[in-house]
Amino acid sequence: MDTEPTSINLEAKLAKFSDRWHPKIISNFNGHDVMLVKVKGDFVWHSHPDTDDFFLVLQGTLRIDLRTPSGETTHVELNPGELYVVPKGIEHRPVAVDEVHLLLIEPIGTPNTGDPSTAVKKEVI
Amino acid sequence: MDTEPTSINLEAKLAKFSDRWHPKIISNFNGHDVMLVKVKGDFVWHSHPDTDDFFLVLQGTLRIDLRTPSGETTHVELNPGELYVVPKGIEHRPVAVDEVHLLLIEPIGTPNTGDPSTAVKKEVI
Repeated sequence: MDTEPTSINLEAKLAKFSDRWHPKIISNFNGHDVMLVKVKGDFVWHSHPDTDDFFLVLQGTLRIDLRTPSGETTHVELNPGELYVVPKGIEHRPVAVDEVHLLLIEPIGTPNTGDPSTAVKKEVI
Repeated sequence: MDTEPTSINLEAKLAKFSDRWHPKIISNFNGHDVMLVKVKGDFVWHSHPDTDDFFLVLQGTLRIDLRTPSGETTHVELNPGELYVVPKGIEHRPVAVDEVHLLLIEPIGTPNTGDPSTAVKKEVI
């Protein structure tokens, strides 16, 4: 433990970056990264075979398109103060018409695209 | 996955209960419970030997007293939009002068007091 424990202020951390789709690590717990990310536009369809995917919206409106195991497409819409967990193995695609700020939690090392060859490197801020 | 995925609105969930120190489970991910809790007053000093303890303040000001491995007492203060992770094994005591609303994440089954014999049952809402 830090001898001087400090709180992590989400707004202050969000003010430190403006690039989109590049999650920033702000803390860790139980083998997971706690991250902030700014997004706008459509992400790629992807899934994570071994991990659920935690989204909490801090600003803006996020649509998450989802493909059910039977192949149908549905979606969930998240406004500030709303969260959703995409179950492991479920194909999904985040879509943000305007910029959205998100808190994400994923196991350390999880590729954001579901594929290490296309994943961005997650920076610690 | 639900065929009708729905967002989880933190304010709407908080409006469903008023009891304090009784965490309510609002979601799960990767073997963890995502919980809301309302607290006021001093909790007991405790620690969790096998799990970090995630706190995100949604309303109010929470002080978390912490005992360092060398036995000194320190604390961290959290305001809305601020988070802190108490590392596993670190003794801590949440203190709320006025009512505080928190988002907590812990492995499923973690006793809130660190001791199953004194822990409260976590209700799903």
